[in-house]
Amino acid sequence: VATLRVRFALNLKGLAYEEIPVDLAHGAQCDPEFLLVNPQGAVPAIAAGGAPPLTQSLAILEYLEESHPRSALLPADLQGRVRVRAISLIFGADNHPVLAPRVVRHLGDALRADGAQRLAWVRHWFRQGLFQGEARLANDPHTSRFCHGDALSFADICLTSHAIVARDFQVEAADLPTVTRIVRMCLEEEAFERALPHRAAGAPA
Amino acid sequence: VATLRVRFALNLKGLAYEEIPVDLAHGAQCDPEFLLVNPQGAVPAIAAGGAPPLTQSLAILEYLEESHPRSALLPADLQGRVRVRAISLIFGADNHPVLAPRVVRHLGDALRADGAQRLAWVRHWFRQGLFQGEARLANDPHTSRFCHGDALSFADICLTSHAIVARDFQVEAADLPTVTRIVRMCLEEEAFERALPHRAAGAPA
Repeated sequence: VATLRVRFALNLKGLAYEEIPVDLAHGAQCDPEFLLVNPQGAVPAIAAGGAPPLTQSLAILEYLEESHPRSALLPADLQGRVRVRAISLIFGADNHPVLAPRVVRHLGDALRADGAQRLAWVRHWFRQGLFQGEARLANDPHTSRFCHGDALSFADICLTSHAIVARDFQVEAADLPTVTRIVRMCLEEEAFERALPHRAAGAPA
Repeated sequence: VATLRVRFALNLKGLAYEEIPVDLAHGAQCDPEFLLVNPQGAVPAIAAGGAPPLTQSLAILEYLEESHPRSALLPADLQGRVRVRAISLIFGADNHPVLAPRVVRHLGDALRADGAQRLAWVRHWFRQGLFQGEARLANDPHTSRFCHGDALSFADICLTSHAIVARDFQVEAADLPTVTRIVRMCLEEEAFERALPHRAAGAPA
C-alpha cells in the first residue's frame, strides 16, 4: 500500500522512475544490503539525485510536492491543505500501519493468532479505514469529484491505495458510496491505472 | 500521545490556547457532542479562527508550521524536511497507531487478549518505536543536539511524546543512548516541560 502511494504520486507528477522490487514475502527488506538503504527494513525507499535514500511514504509525498510543485497534490489554501493531510492520515497513520506485516506477524508470535484470525485482523482494519474515510468525506461540502474538490491530492492517493488492496482482501465497501465513487474516479485516471500492483515490477503472476 | 504532540508544538510556537479535556477513559470522544467536532471520535481536534475543527495531530503540526512560521519546526532545506518528516512518522504512523486504544480494544474483542496481553502489546509497540528511532538516529551525521541538528523539530516532538508515555508504561530505554539523550535535552526546554501530561487540564490526579 505504501509503495503504491509513492508510485501514484510519481505518475501524477509525470516523473520517470526505475523500480527495484524487494521480495517482502521472503523477508528481503531485512537483508543487510537493503538495511543500508533503509535501516527500518521497510518499503518504500527512494533514491533521488544522489541524496541519501528517502523513506516513509507520506514524507516522500511531501518531498515530491515540494521538489516538483507542478501537478500540485496539495491545495493552495491553508485550510485545504490541513484537510487533505488529515484525510490522508486516516489511511496512512490510523489504519494502514495497524495491518502492516510486522504487526500481523506479532499477532501470531505474541497472541498465537492463527491464519484465519490474522486475516480477519487485516480485513477489519482495511474496512475501518474505508469506513472512517466515508464518515469524513460524506456530507462534507469540500468533497466533490475527488476527496478535496475537483483536483487530485494526497488524500485520493492514500484512499485509493488503501481501497484497491482492501478489494484484494474481499473487504466490503458497497455500502460506502462516497469512497467507492471517488476510488472509481481515480482509477479512471491513467496515472493511477498504470501504477496498479499487477502492473508493477516483481508482482506475483 | 497525539494530544501531547500538539501541545508541544503550540508551546514551542508561543501560541496561547485553551484546552477542553475529553475523558477518553469514559469514551467521551464518542459522545454525539464531540462527534460533531471530529466524526472520527478521536483526539486531538483544535479549533482556530472560526474554521472547522482541525484533526489528526501530524496534519495539525503542518498547519501550525505554515500558519505560524516563526520558531520553525521544520528545517529550511528540502532534504532536511524529508528527514524530519520521516523520523516523525516512525512514531506518528508506524508505531503509535498500533497501540491506540481502539486497537487495544479490538485485541480483546477479536482475539480475547486479556489485560496482561493487552498491556504487553502496548509496551511492545512503545519499545519498537524507540528502538526504530534509535536505529534511525544513531550514527547519522544529521543527528546532533536534537533529532535534526541543533534546532527542535517535528521529529523531537514526536519522539518525546512517544518516549514520555512509554516511560509511564515502564518501557525500557536505557540501552538506547541516542533517543534517551535527545528526550532528556527536550525535557529541559520549558515548552516541553510545561506540556507534560501531569500538568494538563483533565489529567488524573
